[in-house]
Amino acid sequence: MSGTIKKLINEPSAAVDEMLDGFVSAHGDVVALSGPRVVTRAKPNGSKVGVVIGGGSGHEPALLGYVGYGLADAAAIGNIFAAPSADLVYESIVQADHGQGVVLVYGNYTGDVLNCKLAVRRASALGIDVRCVFVSDDVASARREEMDKRRGTAGDIFVFKATGAAAERGMSLDEVDRVARTVNSRARSMGVALTAGELPGAARPIFESIPNEMEIGMGVHGEPGMGRGPLLTADEVGRSLATRILDDFDCPSGSSFAVLVNGFGATPLLEQYLVYRGVRNLIIEKGHSVSRSYVGEYITSLQMAGLSTCLLLLDAELLSLIDAPARSVSFVQTDKDM
Amino acid sequence: MSGTIKKLINEPSAAVDEMLDGFVSAHGDVVALSGPRVVTRAKPNGSKVGVVIGGGSGHEPALLGYVGYGLADAAAIGNIFAAPSADLVYESIVQADHGQGVVLVYGNYTGDVLNCKLAVRRASALGIDVRCVFVSDDVASARREEMDKRRGTAGDIFVFKATGAAAERGMSLDEVDRVARTVNSRARSMGVALTAGELPGAARPIFESIPNEMEIGMGVHGEPGMGRGPLLTADEVGRSLATRILDDFDCPSGSSFAVLVNGFGATPLLEQYLVYRGVRNLIIEKGHSVSRSYVGEYITSLQMAGLSTCLLLLDAELLSLIDAPARSVSFVQTDKDM
Repeated sequence: MSGTIKKLINEPSAAVDEMLDGFVSAHGDVVALSGPRVVTRAKPNGSKVGVVIGGGSGHEPALLGYVGYGLADAAAIGNIFAAPSADLVYESIVQADHGQGVVLVYGNYTGDVLNCKLAVRRASALGIDVRCVFVSDDVASARREEMDKRRGTAGDIFVFKATGAAAERGMSLDEVDRVARTVNSRARSMGVALTAGELPGAARPIFESIPNEMEIGMGVHGEPGMGRGPLLTADEVGRSLATRILDDFDCPSGSSFAVLVNGFGATPLLEQYLVYRGVRNLIIEKGHSVSRSYVGEYITSLQMAGLSTCLLLLDAELLSLIDAPARSVSFVQTDKDM
Repeated sequence: MSGTIKKLINEPSAAVDEMLDGFVSAHGDVVALSGPRVVTRAKPNGSKVGVVIGGGSGHEPALLGYVGYGLADAAAIGNIFAAPSADLVYESIVQADHGQGVVLVYGNYTGDVLNCKLAVRRASALGIDVRCVFVSDDVASARREEMDKRRGTAGDIFVFKATGAAAERGMSLDEVDRVARTVNSRARSMGVALTAGELPGAARPIFESIPNEMEIGMGVHGEPGMGRGPLLTADEVGRSLATRILDDFDCPSGSSFAVLVNGFGATPLLEQYLVYRGVRNLIIEKGHSVSRSYVGEYITSLQMAGLSTCLLLLDAELLSLIDAPARSVSFVQTDKDM
């Protein structure tokens, strides 16, 4: 077993398929495997618009954890940090379509976009109406003037949740598509990384970790961000991430936000709550309000230490959609009166 | 900032109180802070037996994540890896009692047991009937003949879940107490650790990590287990943990289990599912069945890498109780028909 980070794996090249085997055998009441790398709902809802997600592995609980009631109908699962093939994306679209069309939600990465477009062309030839939404929430990955070049990170979660709820409510394809685009345009994220993850079978971590420094604006695959800086306190990290994101929104005082603090894999929940506190306090000091909060590991990067925060600028419709009931393996939402 | 593991914290000595501040401000629809270190339900249910949990911090989402509908009414929160004081335990009992008595569920650690007993004496003087159940599921921590010397680890989760459900159903104090004891007697766990966590402000990790080796039977505070051994594959780890636990049960073929694979903090979900697969396959090969499965971080040890597995020997009553609806911050269970 090579590498510097100790791992609990078998043959590295088998890790993704073995994980899927474990996942569907553990959660057979929620998910099934329809083909080798396509996770679908155990109990499909055949009377609504399909919602399809997908992407590389290594980000668990994304993406397989978000297939279920009120969320996605199918997910195509790629190798670790690699886009699923066009064949897999096509297969996931076919599984999710029940004659009312499909909204395909992927992170905005070159390989994912390319394979999605190839798959959509084939699905269209079959008569399936597919709308693509490429999530682009990471403010550190491109300037505001080039928003369509930004990467998709924790914003994925809000897009999945609201889009899944819209479809579950029986909204039309045009409406579900509109919801997905609206959430993407109102979600902004940024992260910091303290140490790197390491690919199974790799000889070394994805990037070098420097004592007392952190990477600022790092992507979920270890893509470089805006540079390196001294390791700050939890307060400073939370406040600076929130400041950078609010500057990017440039929204009027009195806005209402949903806040997601997302651990990258090796950062304790204790630290995530300390950073959440900094994010929240800064938002309130700027005259806005925090209406919903999520803290935990939603989209990770193997065992990378660090976290990101995502702010979703709410309106009444989005709030109602993110509050709607859901039951996937990794996102369960129940009656708030309980 | 001393130490070898980079952390996102502020003043180390303030970490627990700041975490609690972040936690209750994030999840005010589910939890409140009744006193500085006592987490209670935001919407108390005053017509049932109280369920009180507690313990040291650093194990998040345990213990604060398990306060809510169908789970605990209150949790006393200690410093990192330190039992809460008798005053705090007492305060949590008073908060949870509504005249029908309280079941107090704690891990079986010297400091916790001592402080719980002191608190119960004071509560009794006030006329509150308190039953104590000290969870002792870790098979690696003492021989089977000395089960009352075993530590409480991931078995906590099953005890909290079933006890909370029993109380929510309106069962009597005697019955809720019986359920807690039954679950504890039918839950067995064991873990392995690959690398250690590090206390905020500490100069070094809790134990030294040796390349290509793992600690076997490690406790959730880094307590030594049964020794060190070569780092095994995920299959080997899963199968050996399940073998050791099944041997301890010594139950007839055809038994039905709930399986929990619990990450300690820095082990990716991908690896947890690979180990789950080994555990599950071994159980089935031995002629038993796996009726429910939980995989994720339920009780952690800061950023320790590694995991434990807990098996709960089911009967119809326990299955119904662990399936009952719940809504805490970190454990949400909804209608299985969804």
